[in-house]
Amino acid sequence: MSFGGEGLASRVNGQVHVIGAGLLGASIGLGLRDRGVTVTLEDASPTTVALATDYGAGRARLPSDPEPALVVVATPPDVTADVIERALRAFPSSVVTDVASVKLAPFVELQRRGVDLTHYVGSHPMAGRERGGAIMARADLFTARPWVICRDEETPPEALAIVEAVALELGATPIEMTPQEHDLAVGLVSHLPQAVASLLAGRLVSASEQAIGLAGQGLRDTTRIASGQPELWVQILGANRAPVIEALDAFRGDLDAFTEALRAPDKPGARRQLADLLAAGNRGVARIPGKHGSSDRFVTLTVLIDDRPGQLASLLTELGDLGINMEDLRLEHSPGAQIGFAEIAVLPDVAEQAITDLTERGWRTL
Amino acid sequence: MSFGGEGLASRVNGQVHVIGAGLLGASIGLGLRDRGVTVTLEDASPTTVALATDYGAGRARLPSDPEPALVVVATPPDVTADVIERALRAFPSSVVTDVASVKLAPFVELQRRGVDLTHYVGSHPMAGRERGGAIMARADLFTARPWVICRDEETPPEALAIVEAVALELGATPIEMTPQEHDLAVGLVSHLPQAVASLLAGRLVSASEQAIGLAGQGLRDTTRIASGQPELWVQILGANRAPVIEALDAFRGDLDAFTEALRAPDKPGARRQLADLLAAGNRGVARIPGKHGSSDRFVTLTVLIDDRPGQLASLLTELGDLGINMEDLRLEHSPGAQIGFAEIAVLPDVAEQAITDLTERGWRTL
Repeated sequence: MSFGGEGLASRVNGQVHVIGAGLLGASIGLGLRDRGVTVTLEDASPTTVALATDYGAGRARLPSDPEPALVVVATPPDVTADVIERALRAFPSSVVTDVASVKLAPFVELQRRGVDLTHYVGSHPMAGRERGGAIMARADLFTARPWVICRDEETPPEALAIVEAVALELGATPIEMTPQEHDLAVGLVSHLPQAVASLLAGRLVSASEQAIGLAGQGLRDTTRIASGQPELWVQILGANRAPVIEALDAFRGDLDAFTEALRAPDKPGARRQLADLLAAGNRGVARIPGKHGSSDRFVTLTVLIDDRPGQLASLLTELGDLGINMEDLRLEHSPGAQIGFAEIAVLPDVAEQAITDLTERGWRTL
Repeated sequence: MSFGGEGLASRVNGQVHVIGAGLLGASIGLGLRDRGVTVTLEDASPTTVALATDYGAGRARLPSDPEPALVVVATPPDVTADVIERALRAFPSSVVTDVASVKLAPFVELQRRGVDLTHYVGSHPMAGRERGGAIMARADLFTARPWVICRDEETPPEALAIVEAVALELGATPIEMTPQEHDLAVGLVSHLPQAVASLLAGRLVSASEQAIGLAGQGLRDTTRIASGQPELWVQILGANRAPVIEALDAFRGDLDAFTEALRAPDKPGARRQLADLLAAGNRGVARIPGKHGSSDRFVTLTVLIDDRPGQLASLLTELGDLGINMEDLRLEHSPGAQIGFAEIAVLPDVAEQAITDLTERGWRTL
């Protein structure tokens, strides 16, 4: 369902041009077409355009097509600056945005070349999948994701408004940052984890079959993103070198301190240092938003539920009746067990009353 | 449901004694009681025994109880050797096993003390949760998990058979290893990821709110296990120092090579080295058995839900009406977003029909 589709379509003159028809470009195409916008596609590979067209993400541009109000550059990072420059020249009255994972390097490069950036607004939807390509595209790839929009002092408000409208329309949450702020942030929360997960997973290549056989969910989770595309990540990490190196160096400092404390556990303070570094990990996880059971902002209530159909539905209905707003929910339920747990995140100020109300109504809370 | 419960109950003379009534001890108690075995519990803390008893994991030993055929030591690692020694003396005709995460250190310590280890069989079920305690216990904690059993040359086959029978009965897969093989394997697939995830998560403590706001599923997954208990992990890593240090050193070697290549990307071979290390990560992930993301046994449906009170309750009511049995549920919801995802695990054979039915009723599935 869309509440602003017509607004968007008219704001972009009914047409958006997407350059680069891979995962992100095709997902934007699918999402915009769902909202009544005509999407034209362009890609260095005609096969990719054909595939994305078959997939419903748009169609090739025709000579009769009007100049689009918005051009989205969704190419690999190493050609982003070139393609942005070309787009600004080819569509002189269009707003041009890009969705590359790094924001400062292309901006600086374009400035260095003396390109007029009045109509350029950099952006970065925090969305992706391990596998790329139009075939992996989803209209709702951006739903509920942050979409960073890089405002420059000289960016005209209309240009910014169009990019924000697209982000909102695709279900994302626009967040304004400078390119520097963006690159520092993703260096820490996206690029460092990517490098660390890859290096951790790489240690498994030479592992014995016996060791691999003991792998559990912890190892799976810590290494999942290591299945990303190496070529793409070499480009991304290379384009964001300074923040990534800073993050890697800080991580290595902690790694060294940890290893040394483990090597000499009887040194004064060694065990304390190990515990402190592990406890810092606890606090770090707790800061990640939207994560079940651990956000600082919410309190988790655990309610026991019988393993009968409708039990959870009636609990949630009851919560609604009580006016308790559930911020997150997780069901813990063992196959075959007679009982499960609903872990419900609520704001701290309603937690106590919620427990009282639920208990009065016969629910067992932990 | 159990197919071999009576067999197990008679093999252990109907009774198993569990020392340490935390997560693992209480889960073993719950699982064995489901299978008709009388479980007696002992813990340094009487409150813990009382809690685990209330929870259905067993009961305190009575003077009239016979000597159990099996004693399971499920205490924290730092007292494991002491408790094993005490159990072997208190129950001289019982087989004694333990479930500690490290196998060589307690074994060597017991040998050093000259304890007769004829009736001792070390074991380690590869199962756990971030939070400990009887309250987190589940009868099926061990389902489909490897359960390492450490055979010594002098271990009598009957003793080994009892521990294997318990592992099988609780749904786990017994795997025989030497203590050395076990410790090397878990050092790599469990202890290294734990340390790395904790250090990675620790980097978030000083992150800006802005950076934390961009966190996505990749960061969540790579740091999830960092919410484990620091005190417990200091003990585990300390008890398995040599293999963990070896794994940390090898990881650090890769980290240094990666960082140096990123620092000097124009050096001959630098980009190639980055790509090779990332590609090794791909190969490492591919070696991990079991499909990521959810249990092999279930398929996950993702249903979009609006952020309105009652939406999730009505989805669950609808699922109940449709006769779809939900095996697990997780809500993904970004703060401030208008929409969330309910990830619902169902048995594979109902998944397709469930999607059809939900779509017909107006739900959007991914």
